[in-house]
Amino acid sequence: MKLNKLGESGIIKMIYQKPKDKNILVGIGDDAAVVKIGKKIGVITTDTLVEGDHFNLSYFTPEQVGMKAIEINVSDIVSMGGAPKYALVSLALRKEMDSRFIDGLYKGMRKAAEKYGVEIIGGNLTHANQIMIDIDLIGFVKKQNLSLRSDAKPGDFILVSGDLGASTAGLKLFLKRIKGHSYVKKKHLEPKAHPEKVQKFLQYINAMIDVSDGLASEVKHICEQSIVGATIYADNIPIRDETRKAAKAVNSDALDYALYGGEDFELVYTVSEKNLPKVRGYLIGEITKKKGIRICKNGKEKPLKKHGYDHFA
Amino acid sequence: MKLNKLGESGIIKMIYQKPKDKNILVGIGDDAAVVKIGKKIGVITTDTLVEGDHFNLSYFTPEQVGMKAIEINVSDIVSMGGAPKYALVSLALRKEMDSRFIDGLYKGMRKAAEKYGVEIIGGNLTHANQIMIDIDLIGFVKKQNLSLRSDAKPGDFILVSGDLGASTAGLKLFLKRIKGHSYVKKKHLEPKAHPEKVQKFLQYINAMIDVSDGLASEVKHICEQSIVGATIYADNIPIRDETRKAAKAVNSDALDYALYGGEDFELVYTVSEKNLPKVRGYLIGEITKKKGIRICKNGKEKPLKKHGYDHFA
Repeated sequence: MKLNKLGESGIIKMIYQKPKDKNILVGIGDDAAVVKIGKKIGVITTDTLVEGDHFNLSYFTPEQVGMKAIEINVSDIVSMGGAPKYALVSLALRKEMDSRFIDGLYKGMRKAAEKYGVEIIGGNLTHANQIMIDIDLIGFVKKQNLSLRSDAKPGDFILVSGDLGASTAGLKLFLKRIKGHSYVKKKHLEPKAHPEKVQKFLQYINAMIDVSDGLASEVKHICEQSIVGATIYADNIPIRDETRKAAKAVNSDALDYALYGGEDFELVYTVSEKNLPKVRGYLIGEITKKKGIRICKNGKEKPLKKHGYDHFA
Repeated sequence: MKLNKLGESGIIKMIYQKPKDKNILVGIGDDAAVVKIGKKIGVITTDTLVEGDHFNLSYFTPEQVGMKAIEINVSDIVSMGGAPKYALVSLALRKEMDSRFIDGLYKGMRKAAEKYGVEIIGGNLTHANQIMIDIDLIGFVKKQNLSLRSDAKPGDFILVSGDLGASTAGLKLFLKRIKGHSYVKKKHLEPKAHPEKVQKFLQYINAMIDVSDGLASEVKHICEQSIVGATIYADNIPIRDETRKAAKAVNSDALDYALYGGEDFELVYTVSEKNLPKVRGYLIGEITKKKGIRICKNGKEKPLKKHGYDHFA
């Protein structure tokens, strides 16, 4: 079967295998793998930026590409409840490129890394027709802070750490060469991880994930792995006026960008009713025993059918 | 400056930075990074296979691509004196590919991984125009076994764990569509890491590296990082008759393949005179106080000028 028929989740089902080593606490299928290393718990992730897909050098500076490469990986470690520490950088570059690209890229990567106390400790270098930047990020997590996709419980509230849809709005404006709209464009060019938004109450979070492929897709991941359902309150999803204006400029709906866009890198997390007063964030839904995901808009509830960005669909 | 003028070593010099965190024992510039994690010492590496450069699906099966991806990374951990444990797999695939490729690839990766007690614990999936398989491999090393590129000392002997040049010979035959020569072709299609060849005497090895870009290039890395020179005894380099015959079939010199070819994944290591009786391998040279690399052939010594495969040259 062709990969574009199978889709991302189909491919992941194909390659999934239950971990054998008892030190592997989380294997394939979450934002990061989790392994016991002596008395520590390591969190390990990898994420790739592909030229023309995740960045375009006609509107990204090399420094912005470097920052993005680090931020999206930091976000994966943060969404496990962990703190990042060491990065390896695997680069595939075109032979005829100018070395200023590497200068800018590393400047951006180091600038982002330093914010989080991360150091680049190694990597690999090869050539290709398309630029690819693959980062491996290793961090550590305290056991009580570990928050898996499979940790949501019926009755949990679903919260999101910040506004959604802006990055996709920015991308659409770049693609249609529309001027202005600096807020959404900056959100697309300089996405940020958000450890500061959750780190004071990590122990009260059940499940957590970051928004890389749209809210609908992330809630679906949590529901599938926790074997639960969810109701999303569309009217509660935080969307900035700047995002609504930008979406309107390309005749689109900002809510669609929030649900099915991506690359916002805000955190989506579930919290029990008891612990709700101990956390912050925008309450945008609840976890239900009843399977499936429903969206509630203007007081009407209907099943959510689309599920966000798929690299192969 | 264009990357093809700068070359691989020029690019690495550009991006090198001395580690700040005292737990980083080895940073950018060796086969793998080495970090203290509690009471353990972690060894972390990453290596990428790019379609058309590191493999070609007209003569590689997907299973062979998978095996190669794991073996070359295991080889990097082994050349630090370590043992591999956990792998992450970052895939960039073409959308129109058939899922049988992924089946074969994972079959090959798991087959190779199991030999070494390695488990695949995670990864990333994206699409691109050119297939790329990036593996991150994490292992552990005992302090007394750690063998860095910078650990060679004047007076050390240089040894190699097995025959060289066969993989390059195999590649040349594939490119010229010459039939037969199964030994060298298999060496190209199914390279292997060789922990078993050194593991009984790791504590007696000073510097170590694996042959990925040709013997000359690897000896140069050891010399540069250990601030020493070397003499290579060309007549002692182990080259199989099959490799000589294959080289002859394309009017080439097998010694050139051994020195400047690559992907043999045999280990090159230096050992003091005192410890020489405790190790095995082919003695192919010695480390000298005098800088530069000289090659001794038919009793004549001359400076080594070429330096093996460069991805950007």
